[in-house]
Amino acid sequence: MSEPVVAIRSRVEAAQADDADPLAYLRARFAVPDGLVYLDGNSLGALPVGVGSTVADSVAREWGEDLIGSWNVNGWWTLPTRVGDRIGALVGAAPGQVLCGDSTTVQLFQAMVALARLKPHRRVIVTDGANFPTDQYVAESVARLLGLELVRVRPDEVASVLDARTALVSFSAVDYRTGELWDLENITSTVHGAGALMLWDLAHAAGALPVDLDRLGADAAVGCSYKYLNGGPGAPAWIYLPARLQEVADLPLTGWQGHVTPFELDPTYSPAPGVERARIGTPPVLSMRALDASLDVFDGVALTELRAKSLRLSGLVIDYVDEHLSGVEVVTPRDPSRRGSQVSLRVASAYEVTQALIARGVVGDFRAPDLVRLGFTPLYLSFVQVWDAMETVSSVLATGEWRDPRFAVRAAVT
Amino acid sequence: MSEPVVAIRSRVEAAQADDADPLAYLRARFAVPDGLVYLDGNSLGALPVGVGSTVADSVAREWGEDLIGSWNVNGWWTLPTRVGDRIGALVGAAPGQVLCGDSTTVQLFQAMVALARLKPHRRVIVTDGANFPTDQYVAESVARLLGLELVRVRPDEVASVLDARTALVSFSAVDYRTGELWDLENITSTVHGAGALMLWDLAHAAGALPVDLDRLGADAAVGCSYKYLNGGPGAPAWIYLPARLQEVADLPLTGWQGHVTPFELDPTYSPAPGVERARIGTPPVLSMRALDASLDVFDGVALTELRAKSLRLSGLVIDYVDEHLSGVEVVTPRDPSRRGSQVSLRVASAYEVTQALIARGVVGDFRAPDLVRLGFTPLYLSFVQVWDAMETVSSVLATGEWRDPRFAVRAAVT
Repeated sequence: MSEPVVAIRSRVEAAQADDADPLAYLRARFAVPDGLVYLDGNSLGALPVGVGSTVADSVAREWGEDLIGSWNVNGWWTLPTRVGDRIGALVGAAPGQVLCGDSTTVQLFQAMVALARLKPHRRVIVTDGANFPTDQYVAESVARLLGLELVRVRPDEVASVLDARTALVSFSAVDYRTGELWDLENITSTVHGAGALMLWDLAHAAGALPVDLDRLGADAAVGCSYKYLNGGPGAPAWIYLPARLQEVADLPLTGWQGHVTPFELDPTYSPAPGVERARIGTPPVLSMRALDASLDVFDGVALTELRAKSLRLSGLVIDYVDEHLSGVEVVTPRDPSRRGSQVSLRVASAYEVTQALIARGVVGDFRAPDLVRLGFTPLYLSFVQVWDAMETVSSVLATGEWRDPRFAVRAAVT
Repeated sequence: MSEPVVAIRSRVEAAQADDADPLAYLRARFAVPDGLVYLDGNSLGALPVGVGSTVADSVAREWGEDLIGSWNVNGWWTLPTRVGDRIGALVGAAPGQVLCGDSTTVQLFQAMVALARLKPHRRVIVTDGANFPTDQYVAESVARLLGLELVRVRPDEVASVLDARTALVSFSAVDYRTGELWDLENITSTVHGAGALMLWDLAHAAGALPVDLDRLGADAAVGCSYKYLNGGPGAPAWIYLPARLQEVADLPLTGWQGHVTPFELDPTYSPAPGVERARIGTPPVLSMRALDASLDVFDGVALTELRAKSLRLSGLVIDYVDEHLSGVEVVTPRDPSRRGSQVSLRVASAYEVTQALIARGVVGDFRAPDLVRLGFTPLYLSFVQVWDAMETVSSVLATGEWRDPRFAVRAAVT
């Protein structure tokens, strides 16, 4: 996590970095439009080239021809565990511990209730007051349902609130706004030291940087699949339940697919052994097929190499701001070991600046109230692209073109 | 619901019925393989022809080219309400009351918790002991989470268990095994008469027969979209929350998309007004696009006409069994007003018989322990097809070809 990052301070150096980039060949695995610098893969990953034909086949042959038989002959039934294992391989989970399905919100609910139930005499849930809204809302809801107290604290200050009343702690590995990567190992062991359980949301980490859930000893984890995993819009999320907790995990969303014998149609719920107890209802097969195909882009890719390139890309941006952009604040940590795969810039009129950049083909996103967020997917981004994006940022700010009234028009979705 | 059904007692009469069928043109809207008699549309509806191109476009253009901008420019954000309204039109819900997303299991959980919270001093949930497993499992889970009691009763005997302790009653409109259609109006008013709330699961009703949720005064309803709605494998489910309850519905799955101002990233949950509060996490867009396109098959179709054809198809089957198949018991009600869009046959060795039928191109399904279930989607089935299917049933039973050992091999998914 602390690779030395060789600074890139000119377009020539960026081109040299591209020439030497061992991951450059991976861009051919994506269908990113020419001329676009896509720095929003942390919101919706770009389209891998193999997805279209896989989904077309799933519609025309699997659904159209094999129909209901596809649950057996085309392996639909085993998709949640097979795709789960593929995701598991990217987050340090040995097979049989990750189940793919539903949304991150639903998986957070499952995980929080299950962990809280493992500590019935402890009455506090801890989360981060800057955590992604869904994480906080679900924690509020679970606390209310179970009659627990909810405490909010910054992840690096968790020790200050832990005590014998703490049942579980739920944090995101990377702050979605600032891009701050927390010290997963230290936090997990601090939480465990207080006898509490640790739930990690890896939405902004999975596929972006190495995470080793098994080694961390996380008690549960969840994540989405449409950001750095490139699984497509609303791709099914996933949940990690470590083997040591599976037999005691008491999950609240008791769907028929998680039953020990789903086809015996038993009127009473008995959970399946293993991670299959985390199955809920029938998964969205077409979206899951797209995700499954999209994961091919990681074939043969070392996450450490991906991480090294990501840090050089984000380092380039930070150095560029320091050297060329006064009035812009880098809110993302400069320490590589504390930086996710994004850089967030605090800028006046951040919404308008974001829109002006998009109009120039540099796609980042705005996060209220004042951040321009730039995400880096090393699978398809080049150093020259990112250099040119920063030149565009510089130009948009210098010319004041963001003041054009059309950039102030708020879209429904920002 | 009580159309007189003119009996069809020969292949010639079946062919005459096809010639006179005002819905025969609808078969061209589906890509059902030639030679297959697909009687499993109550498990997975057949593929509508327009879906492939819609999904291909959603992958290649929306995701691939427009990327994150698709939430605005391609209307991804409004899909759950737009598709919800289209489903609402098929179940008698005025616009703004149906939200599409997640699985039926998740929607049942949402609805049951919300309704129970509306009756905090009543401590009993009632469901059907023969209800689909998920419905019973979720009722068990919700009862446990809220400290309520769960009572099981046949829907037509609900009056015997209702009292001032009953918070809500959760039934399926059509019994998934027997095909029995309950008297929705009478049951709903009986439940309301006891001061309790009524939740209907329309999994086996939506798209199969007319339902008028608004007129019924149902307090909530849920359904899946991959059976008679033909939305594709694992198509997102839906929830109906009537306008009169929306502002007081206190839903437990508090995802960011259901927040009143989702892009202000408020750390505390405040639900959106209207049915949008039922949004949870990011929906599986590709699967929802498929569902949206599939609903086109209902354009210009009167559900009353669909229902009339469905009853003639199921009537043909019942008459055929009576006349030709000794040793086979029709467990589905003979009264058309009490019959869903299926006929279930109790047969010795039902699993093997089902497999032998599939091998002959007649696709129904087996439901444990002893039923062959035949579902009828009038959109793509002809009378001659169903007649021929019954001739095949007759032949499979008469020849004993179902005794071939290969038909006894249990598939993972039955």
